[in-house]
Amino acid sequence: MSKRIAGPEIERLIQLLAKVPGLGPRSARRAALHLIKKKEQLMEPLAVAMGEAVDKVRICSTCGNVDTSDPCTMCTDPRRDDTTIIVVEDVSDLWALERAGAMNARYHVLGGTLSPLDGIGPDDLNIRGLVNRVAAGGVSELILAVNATVEGQTTAHYITDQLEGMGVKVTRLAHGVPVGGELDYLDEGTLSAALRSRTAF
Amino acid sequence: MSKRIAGPEIERLIQLLAKVPGLGPRSARRAALHLIKKKEQLMEPLAVAMGEAVDKVRICSTCGNVDTSDPCTMCTDPRRDDTTIIVVEDVSDLWALERAGAMNARYHVLGGTLSPLDGIGPDDLNIRGLVNRVAAGGVSELILAVNATVEGQTTAHYITDQLEGMGVKVTRLAHGVPVGGELDYLDEGTLSAALRSRTAF
Repeated sequence: MSKRIAGPEIERLIQLLAKVPGLGPRSARRAALHLIKKKEQLMEPLAVAMGEAVDKVRICSTCGNVDTSDPCTMCTDPRRDDTTIIVVEDVSDLWALERAGAMNARYHVLGGTLSPLDGIGPDDLNIRGLVNRVAAGGVSELILAVNATVEGQTTAHYITDQLEGMGVKVTRLAHGVPVGGELDYLDEGTLSAALRSRTAF
Repeated sequence: MSKRIAGPEIERLIQLLAKVPGLGPRSARRAALHLIKKKEQLMEPLAVAMGEAVDKVRICSTCGNVDTSDPCTMCTDPRRDDTTIIVVEDVSDLWALERAGAMNARYHVLGGTLSPLDGIGPDDLNIRGLVNRVAAGGVSELILAVNATVEGQTTAHYITDQLEGMGVKVTRLAHGVPVGGELDYLDEGTLSAALRSRTAF
């Protein structure tokens, strides 16, 4: 903004809203105005909710998830299968898998991937915690739900090496055609993988 | 969300964020996660900024603008021309005109448009305040920057009638081709108006 259009508190609100992913400078102004108009119904509860989240959010000491309790909702849920751990890079991946709702397993959040170029080694990730969980026993399968990137695959291989001889089955997500996807738009790597992993019809 | 993916505080934060214009349910989750990760740098300041805005935002008793002071930033700015008032429907229009930065005039925010079908009459809008400002003297021009809709134009006519005989010049925004606009995509009404209002080249 070139000129001040409102008091410093409103300007600051707009500036901060513009840093929220999904909002740019223009939509931040629109959002600020909407919040101002819905002061009691939306802005006040949102301010309170954010304040509470700031106070209560912590990292789960078991799995590395972020939540307002430690151990987190996933680790304390009694209906989950203790024998399977799904390993993800980030909390957003955990949330995505939960939305899919395909498995009621436990999780382990690595907090990133191995990336020597960025100086991220095994000690920067939550890998030791994973090895300890497996060593503690009771886990029969580890599903490596890391991204299908070079870093993700490198991390997957490193973890597999660390778990060598611990008697746990290590699996990874299937490669293939996305549901609803059109072959014409898919890359060769995905198509080759989908062909290799073809299943009976 | 079908299943609980995190503690109630985080779920509530996501629910409230999803009500912010520009964010949907999916981007609200992404925004919540980003806020949690940037707890100190973004979420805490944003919570504070919203709390302050809740406490301080008020409606300017002179022009109807929303701001953290009354009279507002626009009404107290000493560099603005007191003889011209730009009449807008909503604060968002005021902000849009300020971004254009074309005029250093005063503003008057109506808070909507006349709409008999929705039961919005002259007393529901900030029209009496506008007439009083003009009656107080010192205003030579009133620019009706209302939307080019039926309601906007009806409101413009009503205001013009109310100011009859008060010796103030009433103008409205020009109709024409938007800058950067392609004729091919413009409606007939706009093209006709642009032709009628053609200017020397």
